[in-house]
Amino acid sequence: MRLVVVGGVAAGLSAASRARRLDRSLEIVVLEKGNRISYGACGMPYWVEGQVRSMDELTVYKPEFFERERDIRIRTGCEVTTVQHSRREVALRSGERIRYDRLVWAAGARPAERIQHERVFNLHTDVDAERLQEFLRTRQPRTAAVIGGGYIGLEMATALRARGLAVTLFHEGTQLLHREEDWLTKKLVERLERCRVEVRLNTRAAAPAELPYDLVLCATGLKPNVEVMAEAGAELGRTGALRVSEQQETTLSGVYAAGDCCETTHVVSGRPVWVPLGTTANKMGRVAGSNAAGQRERFSGIVGTSVVRVGGMAVAMTGLSTQQARRDGFSPVDVLIESRARPKYFRGKMLQVQLVADRNSRRLLGAAIAGDEDAAGRINVVAAALAAKMRVEDFADLDLAYAPPYATVNDPLLVAAHQLRKALD
Amino acid sequence: MRLVVVGGVAAGLSAASRARRLDRSLEIVVLEKGNRISYGACGMPYWVEGQVRSMDELTVYKPEFFERERDIRIRTGCEVTTVQHSRREVALRSGERIRYDRLVWAAGARPAERIQHERVFNLHTDVDAERLQEFLRTRQPRTAAVIGGGYIGLEMATALRARGLAVTLFHEGTQLLHREEDWLTKKLVERLERCRVEVRLNTRAAAPAELPYDLVLCATGLKPNVEVMAEAGAELGRTGALRVSEQQETTLSGVYAAGDCCETTHVVSGRPVWVPLGTTANKMGRVAGSNAAGQRERFSGIVGTSVVRVGGMAVAMTGLSTQQARRDGFSPVDVLIESRARPKYFRGKMLQVQLVADRNSRRLLGAAIAGDEDAAGRINVVAAALAAKMRVEDFADLDLAYAPPYATVNDPLLVAAHQLRKALD
Repeated sequence: MRLVVVGGVAAGLSAASRARRLDRSLEIVVLEKGNRISYGACGMPYWVEGQVRSMDELTVYKPEFFERERDIRIRTGCEVTTVQHSRREVALRSGERIRYDRLVWAAGARPAERIQHERVFNLHTDVDAERLQEFLRTRQPRTAAVIGGGYIGLEMATALRARGLAVTLFHEGTQLLHREEDWLTKKLVERLERCRVEVRLNTRAAAPAELPYDLVLCATGLKPNVEVMAEAGAELGRTGALRVSEQQETTLSGVYAAGDCCETTHVVSGRPVWVPLGTTANKMGRVAGSNAAGQRERFSGIVGTSVVRVGGMAVAMTGLSTQQARRDGFSPVDVLIESRARPKYFRGKMLQVQLVADRNSRRLLGAAIAGDEDAAGRINVVAAALAAKMRVEDFADLDLAYAPPYATVNDPLLVAAHQLRKALD
Repeated sequence: MRLVVVGGVAAGLSAASRARRLDRSLEIVVLEKGNRISYGACGMPYWVEGQVRSMDELTVYKPEFFERERDIRIRTGCEVTTVQHSRREVALRSGERIRYDRLVWAAGARPAERIQHERVFNLHTDVDAERLQEFLRTRQPRTAAVIGGGYIGLEMATALRARGLAVTLFHEGTQLLHREEDWLTKKLVERLERCRVEVRLNTRAAAPAELPYDLVLCATGLKPNVEVMAEAGAELGRTGALRVSEQQETTLSGVYAAGDCCETTHVVSGRPVWVPLGTTANKMGRVAGSNAAGQRERFSGIVGTSVVRVGGMAVAMTGLSTQQARRDGFSPVDVLIESRARPKYFRGKMLQVQLVADRNSRRLLGAAIAGDEDAAGRINVVAAALAAKMRVEDFADLDLAYAPPYATVNDPLLVAAHQLRKALD
């Protein structure tokens, strides 16, 4: 019995490792297109910034680890170009064909826009990061344009500032981070400008190669690597990513998918969504690996939690924004409060907390938190409440930890929840 | 219609304020035994330590605020010595009698042991804190004994060290913080000794006044102020604190209780518990005030969350320990893991995370977290999960925020949850 896993980063290696743990007799082969496996791509902006010293520091495991410790065969430099499911066979770019009994497709995503030009960069793979670092070191660019105001765009704008470049951030939309909240964009722009990043919202940049900057970074989003699977007959969802069951099985029996190539369920709305993130990829991979090894596990989905740091400020989000909630058929009510994260005498700083709830069911639907102190820890409390489909009343009664060095007696989360109760009455 | 509130700190003022918000015509009188209202007693160790400059900094509101802004009459220096419920009347120590239609008893708790001796101190009221500060300033003691290894004992041991005193901590039991976990006590003792606090566990100190130290602080726990109410006919629970309904009503109709004088329900075990904490007092007070003003609100109880800082380390706890769980009829299984709170390249430090679950229902029952980074934020995620009666599987799937400055891709909470899943299988 052979399990072939396509993709050797987060989802693929989670799947392979989990399958091995459940079945010691399975033959497991991981096919990775690139030359490096198991690296934390989310850390790459911090390598550019200088916080991380080398790509090796971002690499969790070498292939030998998997071969030796887990009896998982790792083949790098192997791009799968076709899947012929009737024959249970994948073909590599080299022409080689490999048979499988079970297949896990964890081929990830790729930049929506990739332009071959010496001054134009993406930051998606280890190769991208190495090429950018080389350029920064040898060419000493002085000006940079970052195109796209998502996570990577914001992280890279501040990372390039930290390297001393004059940075301009172009963003087509009016709101950053794909969260339709003016207050959040305002906070972000303020902070970016304090870092002396020039921000141009609502601006479609010229073609990257024609922009008059020493360096141009494209961070205009991703698209899922699904073409090979689609050609093999696997169904895509409305999001354009692979449709999978709760067991992470594609519409081809015995073929699983996990990570940035497939969609999942948004637990708050119940709808399929495509949110490519490493944390989710690991969870999906684990479930895909379990089921590929014959166990029955399910992944219930995400609530859409994320956090990003911009110039010392954390912006953390989970669940639905007011506008998303409305589109998903809820009657959203929201409040935005400002409250100190810790007592003034501990020099506690202000946090902005926005909570969204449904007027009819009084269910909590989402939150966004911005501030310089523990926004991430607090968004996770909301994430747990959303997973549990908690009502605002119950959330307001949460027994949160209090001691002056860590919190205020009325935590900002509870202050916001009480305001929201009032707004719902 | 007159509402009399006995007690002018957390619970009492929450009740009075809430009642006013719901009923503008109610006459509201707050009777406070002491001379100061609305102060954050939890901040007093930090005044001793020097982080807080004066008692005023810990005082949220002056009486005038309530009188002027909320039309609530505040009478300080008024100790209620009897309640005659058949006549709807309280009597003050002065002999004065005050009629009520509704009564909220929020008289708090008091130290279990209070010894009148010039070298012996408690840290319970503002007067205690002032007397201690005066003694430290004028007498310049060089050695101190702290009796009791609960929150106050630990906070005061390190606060007195910060003031330069040689401190010995005596604790009768073998485990600190009333959490029956040897690993936690070990971590605490290590940290206390690093602060050069001498720790004597399992040691019953001599009578405070006879201990050969310049200063002796008694922090041997509290008892609820219930005697007046008990005499008036209100029932006490098994914990010795006032028994109240979910509406915070005592067994005397129209008489409510809130805060450190009454018990509440532990949401995990379903049993009555007495856990005197300011955060809970505020929530109870709000509900007591609502119901006293004719609305119907309920307080569902606590999960027993707390956090304390000892020499830079946070120890945070929620729910049941393994031993508590066993006593409460569960079949507890627990794991203790150590995992980095943030990536190594962000100099993330280690967190110890212990999770407890029930073998039969697979419900999460409790957690303890110790470490120098964001233990409080993480314990709150568990607190939310406990309130929602979440199973370990669902907890392990939580969609927690990840970005390298704030967390690892597999958060310590999820690492622990996965270990616990395995232990349950």
